[in-house]
Amino acid sequence: MIRAGIMGATGYVGIEITRLLHQHPKVKVTEVTSQGNAGKDIIEVYPHLTSKVDLTAHKIDTNRLIKNCDVIFISLPHGNAIKFSKIFLEAGKKVIDLGADFRLKNPAEYQFWYDNESAPPELLGQAIYGLPEITSKEAIANTNLLANPGCNATATILATAPALKNKIINPDECIFDIKLGISGGGRNEELKNHFCEISENIFPYHFGGRHRHTPEVEQELSLIAKKPIIIQFSPHLIPIIRGILVTACFKLLSPMTAQEVHALYAKAYENEPFIRMCPLGTVTKVKNVRATNFCDISVQVDVRTQRLLVLCVIDNLIKGGAGQAIQNMNIMFGLPQTTGLDQFISMYP
Amino acid sequence: MIRAGIMGATGYVGIEITRLLHQHPKVKVTEVTSQGNAGKDIIEVYPHLTSKVDLTAHKIDTNRLIKNCDVIFISLPHGNAIKFSKIFLEAGKKVIDLGADFRLKNPAEYQFWYDNESAPPELLGQAIYGLPEITSKEAIANTNLLANPGCNATATILATAPALKNKIINPDECIFDIKLGISGGGRNEELKNHFCEISENIFPYHFGGRHRHTPEVEQELSLIAKKPIIIQFSPHLIPIIRGILVTACFKLLSPMTAQEVHALYAKAYENEPFIRMCPLGTVTKVKNVRATNFCDISVQVDVRTQRLLVLCVIDNLIKGGAGQAIQNMNIMFGLPQTTGLDQFISMYP
Amino acid sequence: MIRAGIMGATGYVGIEITRLLHQHPKVKVTEVTSQGNAGKDIIEVYPHLTSKVDLTAHKIDTNRLIKNCDVIFISLPHGNAIKFSKIFLEAGKKVIDLGADFRLKNPAEYQFWYDNESAPPELLGQAIYGLPEITSKEAIANTNLLANPGCNATATILATAPALKNKIINPDECIFDIKLGISGGGRNEELKNHFCEISENIFPYHFGGRHRHTPEVEQELSLIAKKPIIIQFSPHLIPIIRGILVTACFKLLSPMTAQEVHALYAKAYENEPFIRMCPLGTVTKVKNVRATNFCDISVQVDVRTQRLLVLCVIDNLIKGGAGQAIQNMNIMFGLPQTTGLDQFISMYP
Amino acid sequence: MIRAGIMGATGYVGIEITRLLHQHPKVKVTEVTSQGNAGKDIIEVYPHLTSKVDLTAHKIDTNRLIKNCDVIFISLPHGNAIKFSKIFLEAGKKVIDLGADFRLKNPAEYQFWYDNESAPPELLGQAIYGLPEITSKEAIANTNLLANPGCNATATILATAPALKNKIINPDECIFDIKLGISGGGRNEELKNHFCEISENIFPYHFGGRHRHTPEVEQELSLIAKKPIIIQFSPHLIPIIRGILVTACFKLLSPMTAQEVHALYAKAYENEPFIRMCPLGTVTKVKNVRATNFCDISVQVDVRTQRLLVLCVIDNLIKGGAGQAIQNMNIMFGLPQTTGLDQFISMYP
Repeated sequence: MIRAGIMGATGYVGIEITRLLHQHPKVKVTEVTSQGNAGKDIIEVYPHLTSKVDLTAHKIDTNRLIKNCDVIFISLPHGNAIKFSKIFLEAGKKVIDLGADFRLKNPAEYQFWYDNESAPPELLGQAIYGLPEITSKEAIANTNLLANPGCNATATILATAPALKNKIINPDECIFDIKLGISGGGRNEELKNHFCEISENIFPYHFGGRHRHTPEVEQELSLIAKKPIIIQFSPHLIPIIRGILVTACFKLLSPMTAQEVHALYAKAYENEPFIRMCPLGTVTKVKNVRATNFCDISVQVDVRTQRLLVLCVIDNLIKGGAGQAIQNMNIMFGLPQTTGLDQFISMYP
Repeated sequence: MIRAGIMGATGYVGIEITRLLHQHPKVKVTEVTSQGNAGKDIIEVYPHLTSKVDLTAHKIDTNRLIKNCDVIFISLPHGNAIKFSKIFLEAGKKVIDLGADFRLKNPAEYQFWYDNESAPPELLGQAIYGLPEITSKEAIANTNLLANPGCNATATILATAPALKNKIINPDECIFDIKLGISGGGRNEELKNHFCEISENIFPYHFGGRHRHTPEVEQELSLIAKKPIIIQFSPHLIPIIRGILVTACFKLLSPMTAQEVHALYAKAYENEPFIRMCPLGTVTKVKNVRATNFCDISVQVDVRTQRLLVLCVIDNLIKGGAGQAIQNMNIMFGLPQTTGLDQFISMYP
Repeated sequence: MIRAGIMGATGYVGIEITRLLHQHPKVKVTEVTSQGNAGKDIIEVYPHLTSKVDLTAHKIDTNRLIKNCDVIFISLPHGNAIKFSKIFLEAGKKVIDLGADFRLKNPAEYQFWYDNESAPPELLGQAIYGLPEITSKEAIANTNLLANPGCNATATILATAPALKNKIINPDECIFDIKLGISGGGRNEELKNHFCEISENIFPYHFGGRHRHTPEVEQELSLIAKKPIIIQFSPHLIPIIRGILVTACFKLLSPMTAQEVHALYAKAYENEPFIRMCPLGTVTKVKNVRATNFCDISVQVDVRTQRLLVLCVIDNLIKGGAGQAIQNMNIMFGLPQTTGLDQFISMYP
Repeated sequence: MIRAGIMGATGYVGIEITRLLHQHPKVKVTEVTSQGNAGKDIIEVYPHLTSKVDLTAHKIDTNRLIKNCDVIFISLPHGNAIKFSKIFLEAGKKVIDLGADFRLKNPAEYQFWYDNESAPPELLGQAIYGLPEITSKEAIANTNLLANPGCNATATILATAPALKNKIINPDECIFDIKLGISGGGRNEELKNHFCEISENIFPYHFGGRHRHTPEVEQELSLIAKKPIIIQFSPHLIPIIRGILVTACFKLLSPMTAQEVHALYAKAYENEPFIRMCPLGTVTKVKNVRATNFCDISVQVDVRTQRLLVLCVIDNLIKGGAGQAIQNMNIMFGLPQTTGLDQFISMYP
């Protein structure tokens, strides 16, 4: 059994890693840390796990994590993973960072967007950005330091890659409108998360192209396009708990039918078990992927404008976080990427 | 493998049976019927099941069901199960009715509450009311005709049984206030289910003691109390998708502490894997059991009034429907009652 | 024009007083205080008031309030009103406390439930509990210190008074199940208010008879019954923004029809413009009174149990707070109680 | 007093016209029609209007409407207004159509998008598209046949007009992502409106540029740009009751600062009482305009992409329907456009 530790286990992403790993046939969670709930049993904080999770949260103790874990998931505010991953890597452990510390290969970009000192080059050089359907699975398999993509970035990149790779769209006109559920903002005691402020409301955040997932999308799309890409990225908060819907709007370089685009996307993802192409003429909905690691994609061509419209939905806490981290962990440990993830069927309604 | 058929598979309960049975290690779903969606693949109606469920809905064809199924789940409007179960039983099949046709042992009660002709006595006599934590598991194991309890009834009976059995409460003052999610009303195209009528709203239904789950609760509680019990039963609709919270209010016959009551309930359910007693001093919440077959119970004594207050929560579509039906099926087929049900961990948030 | 000051104007109740008074023909809001937002224009905190409210919040300055106000609404955590009202009363001002400091006539009760030192007797003796449909309008008209009832208490007392006054129910069996919207908990940055914790959830609070509105309901009902009354009071939080539904369950002392009870309630409230009796056989819904000062009441008799069931709905921030405070203010200033309140029509859906 | 009739008064838009006109100082509602609820008092259908609205719905009777009304609001499925308006106009009445029958000046466009025979030219020629902040108020004042804009179209045109008129954006790259509340789909008994299908979900409708408000936006923007404009128009349904947020994305023709754009928008709307420009650096939210006729607009420039981003929010049933219709009525009857509309302050939370 792989022994896993989870740092920041009582956040929404951390507890989802905990939940999913308890249903994974090859993993045992041995350590969970929580600064705010140290000393408490996990089921005191999350009673829904009663009779399922028997763990006590501790304050961060790297010796203890090194002793008891083969892999450490870091779900902490950015900046922390830089500090801790070095220690774990030196002890020969595998590290999966759910935060942003190793996503951007360019230290200047990280410093600009996160207003924080970048990881040292020797550390950053080891990190692999792990979006398994896009980035190299071999690279993931061979690294000990995995940067798990941002939730909005995951859906955005998956919506775009086949069109960009096949050069059917103008790379200078990639416009993304993102609708995100509230769990994406974390379990923080802030007024902006108050039920009465959120319910019956819709609003953007980081309006005007200032969302921090922007540079990682640009980095990955630029690699695909083999030229620098600047995107338009507009996230909005929607009063649902879970889920992301990305509405992508691209300019076709030459006329194509929806059938042709659909075939091209289907081909691109034909070997990817977590991507489901919706039948032509149907549209995906956020709820169709809830509670799963699936990413569903619909494509349509607006014949009046010759724009390609792509819808992409994921569960932000699973394919956009905990599930993708486990998918990466599987690859890093030589397991099939679907292990412990493909038994889930979305709960509806 | 047990071959299962589901009649009414495209309703909310029917599709939940379908989903859960696809994660059951000993069952294969072989037939699904739907009057409104006959001829369609299930994934056309419920795209969230794509790549997981490969079934086509048919109109009801009893020969086909008899040929291909060992057990038939009937999730149809009341009245239908009377007609169909006879045919299946004669063919040697096991039948689990999710509706109300066999819940009430007294034909006159059924006719009064459901305004429909009761099942013939020879059929009704075979039926067992299957609430496994309360009714006899042996009786369930030995029947071919299982009446699955109503969702509100399940939570209400489970909240009450230990107190009544141990004679600590006045059986003539059992007052139940039920809060039910909207999926409890089914997937019907009715104005009452319109998002704009439901959201930001709360209201009772069948107000004034006229809810049809009343007589089955009274029947089962009367059996426990060994005297006729008349209850006060007030259900309300709440703008959530899933879940029931029952707030039960009882008059203690003699002074007891909350500790004593808690111990008594814990003892009563100590061998029941799907009942979780909340630690004294904590309260359960609907979301703690969502997506599982669990029933969570909190107890408290109001020392000022000497009333016992009990909270009981279930997922109305699982422990209140599909999950309990599968729990019953397990017992009817000699499997552990938890098979295919205990791997689920509630999704939160 | 009456010059009004509002202390705690940026809470949900405070801002609702502000909004309503801006639509009142005889009042001008001259001062608003806010500890957390002092120095800011109100529209910075609440942009929805842009072009409607032109006020700057100040830290509490009693001299300034005395100079510029005829009446001061205090919407602050309990304990504060004891301190401030004394100063305002000595300056000849009228005071309306939206908190609990003057609701309980018995100092020991206040100390027990609120764990805080009670107001001095000479101050408490001046205070009038102002539920205008129940308590004496003359007393309200003649006081300078008005204790505005709690939101849950308002709905509960209004649901009960006619039955109790007419001695048709057993006063020892008054059981109230309350469903309350989230704005009732205030605009606090607490985890319990997080959208993800509230949405798709239902749970009780102060479970087991420990809700602080209990003693004020008992005080007022005891006055009506002319004997001490102990109630069962069980509030629950429901994922809606606004609204309270009280489900009251009473034992009839002798058989009555629903018609008879309905007539009795209709008679009791015939001169009260803010109480609407729902036609017999219909049930009220929370949304029917949203955005208004109305209280809607439905009655039904369960003929099987001889219990009287009463539903009562109010908007917790209006009839349960700001609206009722203004209704009281109107009476205190010799205006018709409906002034500035009866022009509102509930917004639906 | 202006005597008003409302056809289709029991739909969500119709009842909102009814509610708002009951708070209008110069109008008396004399007739309301409803095919589904004919013969019923309005308060039977909408009990929240009890004690406020004393009207009985009738089946459509044009003679009766002509006799008792000076203006008729038509809130019926498209096609109906063509038939009825002719009769009313010949009788010298004023007609305001909330539907689409007279919005498009080009009959071929109407036939293409609505799959219905267009109004005859002599009738269509009389119609004025009434978006008072954009189209000529004189033209509105002089017509007897007013085409009230669609809800999504209203917000979209208001978000765009200043930028287009001042020629700061590329008219061939107007990309609109619309988020709409569920009341926008009407009070229909359809599965798509079921609470359980909507809640915790997000999805597009008329995906791929096929939404019927597209041609009216293009018609009006083309008039402003003085050249044909083709837009990208992507509406999504969001689980809120009321509200529209349009996220508009434009390409600036030459570099501009957000300050410059803001000044330009502020100037364009400086005399429009229902348009509120949000302070630079703030973003509007749907809930800020709920229950009002306001339209709030935020602008921002993404300096990395040189795109102009505009947010525009309205209450779809008021500025997007009933309120705008009354604003138009005011102008048609020579009243200030704000009469009966500017007393409302948005309810928050």
